[in-house]
Amino acid sequence: MSEKFTSVHYHSYLQLDKILDAQHPRSAQVEESVAHDEMLFIIMHQVYELWFKQIIHELESISLMFEDNLMDEVEILKAVTRLERIIEIQKLLIDQINVMETLTAMDFLDFRQYLFPASGFQSLQFRVVENLLGLKQEQRLTYNNLPYDVVFSETQKEVLERSIENKSLLTHVIEWLDRTPFLEFSKFSFLEAYKKAVERMIQKDKDAINASEILSEETKKQRLTMMGDTSTYFNAVFDPAQFEEMRNRGEVKFSYKAMLAALFIFLYRDEPILQQPYRLLSRLMDIEEMLTNWRNRHSQMVLRMIGRKTGTGGSSGHQYLKSTAQHHQIFTDLYQVATLLIPRSELPALPEELKQYLGFYFSSHEHVKE
Amino acid sequence: MSEKFTSVHYHSYLQLDKILDAQHPRSAQVEESVAHDEMLFIIMHQVYELWFKQIIHELESISLMFEDNLMDEVEILKAVTRLERIIEIQKLLIDQINVMETLTAMDFLDFRQYLFPASGFQSLQFRVVENLLGLKQEQRLTYNNLPYDVVFSETQKEVLERSIENKSLLTHVIEWLDRTPFLEFSKFSFLEAYKKAVERMIQKDKDAINASEILSEETKKQRLTMMGDTSTYFNAVFDPAQFEEMRNRGEVKFSYKAMLAALFIFLYRDEPILQQPYRLLSRLMDIEEMLTNWRNRHSQMVLRMIGRKTGTGGSSGHQYLKSTAQHHQIFTDLYQVATLLIPRSELPALPEELKQYLGFYFSSHEHVKE
Amino acid sequence: MSEKFTSVHYHSYLQLDKILDAQHPRSAQVEESVAHDEMLFIIMHQVYELWFKQIIHELESISLMFEDNLMDEVEILKAVTRLERIIEIQKLLIDQINVMETLTAMDFLDFRQYLFPASGFQSLQFRVVENLLGLKQEQRLTYNNLPYDVVFSETQKEVLERSIENKSLLTHVIEWLDRTPFLEFSKFSFLEAYKKAVERMIQKDKDAINASEILSEETKKQRLTMMGDTSTYFNAVFDPAQFEEMRNRGEVKFSYKAMLAALFIFLYRDEPILQQPYRLLSRLMDIEEMLTNWRNRHSQMVLRMIGRKTGTGGSSGHQYLKSTAQHHQIFTDLYQVATLLIPRSELPALPEELKQYLGFYFSSHEHVKE
Amino acid sequence: MSEKFTSVHYHSYLQLDKILDAQHPRSAQVEESVAHDEMLFIIMHQVYELWFKQIIHELESISLMFEDNLMDEVEILKAVTRLERIIEIQKLLIDQINVMETLTAMDFLDFRQYLFPASGFQSLQFRVVENLLGLKQEQRLTYNNLPYDVVFSETQKEVLERSIENKSLLTHVIEWLDRTPFLEFSKFSFLEAYKKAVERMIQKDKDAINASEILSEETKKQRLTMMGDTSTYFNAVFDPAQFEEMRNRGEVKFSYKAMLAALFIFLYRDEPILQQPYRLLSRLMDIEEMLTNWRNRHSQMVLRMIGRKTGTGGSSGHQYLKSTAQHHQIFTDLYQVATLLIPRSELPALPEELKQYLGFYFSSHEHVKE
Repeated sequence: MSEKFTSVHYHSYLQLDKILDAQHPRSAQVEESVAHDEMLFIIMHQVYELWFKQIIHELESISLMFEDNLMDEVEILKAVTRLERIIEIQKLLIDQINVMETLTAMDFLDFRQYLFPASGFQSLQFRVVENLLGLKQEQRLTYNNLPYDVVFSETQKEVLERSIENKSLLTHVIEWLDRTPFLEFSKFSFLEAYKKAVERMIQKDKDAINASEILSEETKKQRLTMMGDTSTYFNAVFDPAQFEEMRNRGEVKFSYKAMLAALFIFLYRDEPILQQPYRLLSRLMDIEEMLTNWRNRHSQMVLRMIGRKTGTGGSSGHQYLKSTAQHHQIFTDLYQVATLLIPRSELPALPEELKQYLGFYFSSHEHVKE
Repeated sequence: MSEKFTSVHYHSYLQLDKILDAQHPRSAQVEESVAHDEMLFIIMHQVYELWFKQIIHELESISLMFEDNLMDEVEILKAVTRLERIIEIQKLLIDQINVMETLTAMDFLDFRQYLFPASGFQSLQFRVVENLLGLKQEQRLTYNNLPYDVVFSETQKEVLERSIENKSLLTHVIEWLDRTPFLEFSKFSFLEAYKKAVERMIQKDKDAINASEILSEETKKQRLTMMGDTSTYFNAVFDPAQFEEMRNRGEVKFSYKAMLAALFIFLYRDEPILQQPYRLLSRLMDIEEMLTNWRNRHSQMVLRMIGRKTGTGGSSGHQYLKSTAQHHQIFTDLYQVATLLIPRSELPALPEELKQYLGFYFSSHEHVKE
Repeated sequence: MSEKFTSVHYHSYLQLDKILDAQHPRSAQVEESVAHDEMLFIIMHQVYELWFKQIIHELESISLMFEDNLMDEVEILKAVTRLERIIEIQKLLIDQINVMETLTAMDFLDFRQYLFPASGFQSLQFRVVENLLGLKQEQRLTYNNLPYDVVFSETQKEVLERSIENKSLLTHVIEWLDRTPFLEFSKFSFLEAYKKAVERMIQKDKDAINASEILSEETKKQRLTMMGDTSTYFNAVFDPAQFEEMRNRGEVKFSYKAMLAALFIFLYRDEPILQQPYRLLSRLMDIEEMLTNWRNRHSQMVLRMIGRKTGTGGSSGHQYLKSTAQHHQIFTDLYQVATLLIPRSELPALPEELKQYLGFYFSSHEHVKE
Repeated sequence: MSEKFTSVHYHSYLQLDKILDAQHPRSAQVEESVAHDEMLFIIMHQVYELWFKQIIHELESISLMFEDNLMDEVEILKAVTRLERIIEIQKLLIDQINVMETLTAMDFLDFRQYLFPASGFQSLQFRVVENLLGLKQEQRLTYNNLPYDVVFSETQKEVLERSIENKSLLTHVIEWLDRTPFLEFSKFSFLEAYKKAVERMIQKDKDAINASEILSEETKKQRLTMMGDTSTYFNAVFDPAQFEEMRNRGEVKFSYKAMLAALFIFLYRDEPILQQPYRLLSRLMDIEEMLTNWRNRHSQMVLRMIGRKTGTGGSSGHQYLKSTAQHHQIFTDLYQVATLLIPRSELPALPEELKQYLGFYFSSHEHVKE
């Protein structure tokens, strides 16, 4: 008789004995009367940690797919699905701030002193999430001029170490883009075709400015100068050497090839074999945005809760969180690609043979029949 | 040296050792390979239970306020604030279904068999929440023709019992409305004044129908008959005997006096002393609505996940949940009051003396000075 | 000189002269003092109508794709994208009810009389949306025992007629499923393979029930009887005659073939060529759910606003809206498919040749090379 | 026969002839084939403008209440209700970005050229909203080094002028706080009492740091230094001269008295007569936050849509919007107050007489009876 038919109760399955017996307000231990709102404070953070665990579970599984070189066309869909789950969780994390905000400053201050020096800064799992995504150690803001891991125990530091040693999602994605086969396709030079389209587009924009009836001559000049900036940016793409310099200066993280591959995927996203890769890249941008939204909202909430006071962990609270929204960004290179996009109507047609390669076997077979 | 200055770490404060070690997928125990998505299933439900604990924490504290007769004008604000917190949590519970829906039917079916016969139906805390709010035992839908508590252990049943024995929020609110002093104010007969306003309003509506140029005579007659129904309903308010009959038939739960008090509060909500009581009643309606939304969304999700299959607990799943949305309602009497409202411009003016009683001491003092 | 370089101003481009001069509160015309909140009432409904126009724009474009037989593998993605846009708009429509709810009953009643007999029931565009999606005329609830189009002018009725005459999205989808080529693939009998998998699964479930240590014998018997129901439902799929009877009774709208095709797509959704068709079907379910959510929320709001009073249009308001949530459903057949799903691990493997047909040309080519 | 009984149809009431005939895609005029997605672009912006009109309607009505000196205790509730409506609308404005994001960069680029030089920067109503709230002209970021109103016609500039000439909401609120009577109450010196409470609290925090077992001596010193900063900040409150300097440097906009009044309201928010004033101030903070959220989300969307390209209006797009999130802030002074809050348990008790003044007439009367 297999073990799997053993009955299980909701209560034991979810280990609610543990889960629901893990709320012990500090204010109850040190004072006669417990601060009513400390319960919310505890449960809210426990929920955050549960979701972080789930996010880590998903990120690690995606990394495994990349590592085992499983990332074929079917697996990509699975990775996309898991990234979409992370995004849905992130939405909850953000909306949860609305619950947090029902805790008023004065009620929080009532038990805040007992929490010292505990702080959200000490969430190990949150650091692991950042590392798994690909936040570079050198990007990290210091914390009262100390490294961010100063608050962790030795065992916790080991967990952190492992999350850094393994390849991050960012690294996996770059390597996967590097391997994209379609750029090197026979006679078609993607870069050449794209270059011409860009030139056409820029010329049109310039014509539009010059033809304007309401802009003054001065404004026109100004606008044309700005156009220059944009085209300068396009030029960087066409020149590998210039790109390499940007990379050396730390302005981009992608390799030249990875960047071209991402651009190719963004431009030809409708071709069957590129549909899921495009979604994958888009979801990474969503995750970045959600993380930034969360940091911004969190920072606002802290401002409202403790104003300019220092956080329980001793951090500068509001200011620190606001800075991470700006500096702890990971997939910035994908946003560069947005600058490089051109109108759909200007998109160079793909050679028939390449189009077939990017399509379904079935469709190609149908063609043959006809 | 007071204990309160002992340092505390985020990790131990939140008892993360317990919280993050309470996820043990059954599929991992009975098969070689764990079903990846079972983790989500577990964590999602644990988060639900954590929020239920918080809701119970708030509901119990509000009941205490009522019990200790603390419900003076300052305490009401506190109760309102806690109800608003519950509402914010309910929004999360609903939005969490979006995360749930990233678990597809086929992936769920992969580990569903191991959960048998565990079921959300076995959530003790959810039943306690329903009881604390005021769901009557006789309202409860049966579950495969068995009482809803058949799935609980003896200890759990005791917890349930306690949640029934104490006065529910509904009962507290009715008793609190019963005590409202303002209806009996000296010469002012609220009921008389309201009666006249209603008659005026109904006459206006009838005139509007009769004067219509586009309605056929037949439609006019039909509409006037329907008007009759509404005025019939208003009449029930004016006749305590008729109201008592409705109550005996189980159509209303409020006492006659409580219903009048609620109506008085709804109509004169702008008077200072009634502002928070009005918010209190409104928040109860919000909580009911959120609960109904959650049941509807939950029911839809189950339909999508397992179709017409029976739930793991053996319930008819989708259908059961949909029925509770209709039958497990608690504050229905407050919605009756909506039918009784009249346009603001038709509102009978309060006698100056009563107005002063409903106002601030400061304002009255100011008046005196002038 | 091409016309396209003419300058355009934001204000004229959006025709704000029209848009922002279309709010004329009735209360201002008939009384000295305008009801402040009527402005909200007007703008809220205008926003609804603007979004309805956008939804119609998307639905019509999708129908055109189907009509021109453009629905190849690339076009499906485009249709999915537009359905997803509709869903995002639907979310706004639902959340907009929160704005609506800032209008209190008493303030609404203040100008409600002037609106008579205007009513949301008279929204032509909303009826067109229902028709374009595929709501059958015979499904429609009557309105005071009169046909729903009694409120429209002749010109408006013509618009309605056109929205019925053309094939609805539902019809297009059924025909498209009917054309799916993969069910008839050479030696592989999808139905046979699926049948065996179902039998295996049902047997497992029965074993689980029989092996249970906590269920009483009586409960076991009851559960096994219910299981019978489910297998009965599965049997209907296997027997075209039985299915045809259900269809004649109006219980299903899909053809037998369309239903099998939908099931095939749901089960093998991971195969490259089925990924977008699966998304298409899923998005239709989302649209249905959103519409139902909106109807439920709208119905709740009306209950709160006017209670059991009749609507300005003379409808029974709350009750009518609640009934449409139940009866105005369109894509119900897709939910039937959910009942037919089986665990991913029980999914019958596809023959290698078919798998190739469902895959990418590139992958097949790679195979050849090796 | 009064005009008010004239029938009205939904369609004419909402002036749908105008509203639904105001979408004329430019791409349709200049090319053979219209860009499908331009419709969304137009409607989306029209919806924004309709909501802006509603927000202006509410803001102007609130200003009138202040102007007519109507802002007694009953009116404040009305103002709060209208601010809450604005907040609900702002939530929609933010969520609407999700609809906007279904328009992909490449599809947008397809008709973007025809819009030149129209730009969201030319929304007159949005500028009016900023002005009505209280954004100072000198705070405004320039736009390509030109004043922000350069894009408006003479008539539009007049509208702008009027929105500046009248007192802004910020000014009204400051003046209203200046008039608060309770600070000057007989023998009770609010400032003295508050001062002592702050000193007690800071001492406690210092003790906690010194008693810590895990902080190194160096860290302790660092933390104590930071504490110094906070107390420095508190000191500024106690010294009117120092505050005046901050005001002259433009660091604060409130008067000294207004700031004290706001602090008093925040601290004693539970006293009946302060409950609505507290909500009023809180809602202003919500509005500010929502506006900032919207600017942040908008900026992210633009980054994703056009990358570093310049906007159609010639602005630096993403960067400009991001900067306004930081610099176009209005109610910053209220956030300063958060820094000044103290734990509820440290709150100095009010003298009985003052407490009575802040309470209800009814309660005081009750007291007397006993």
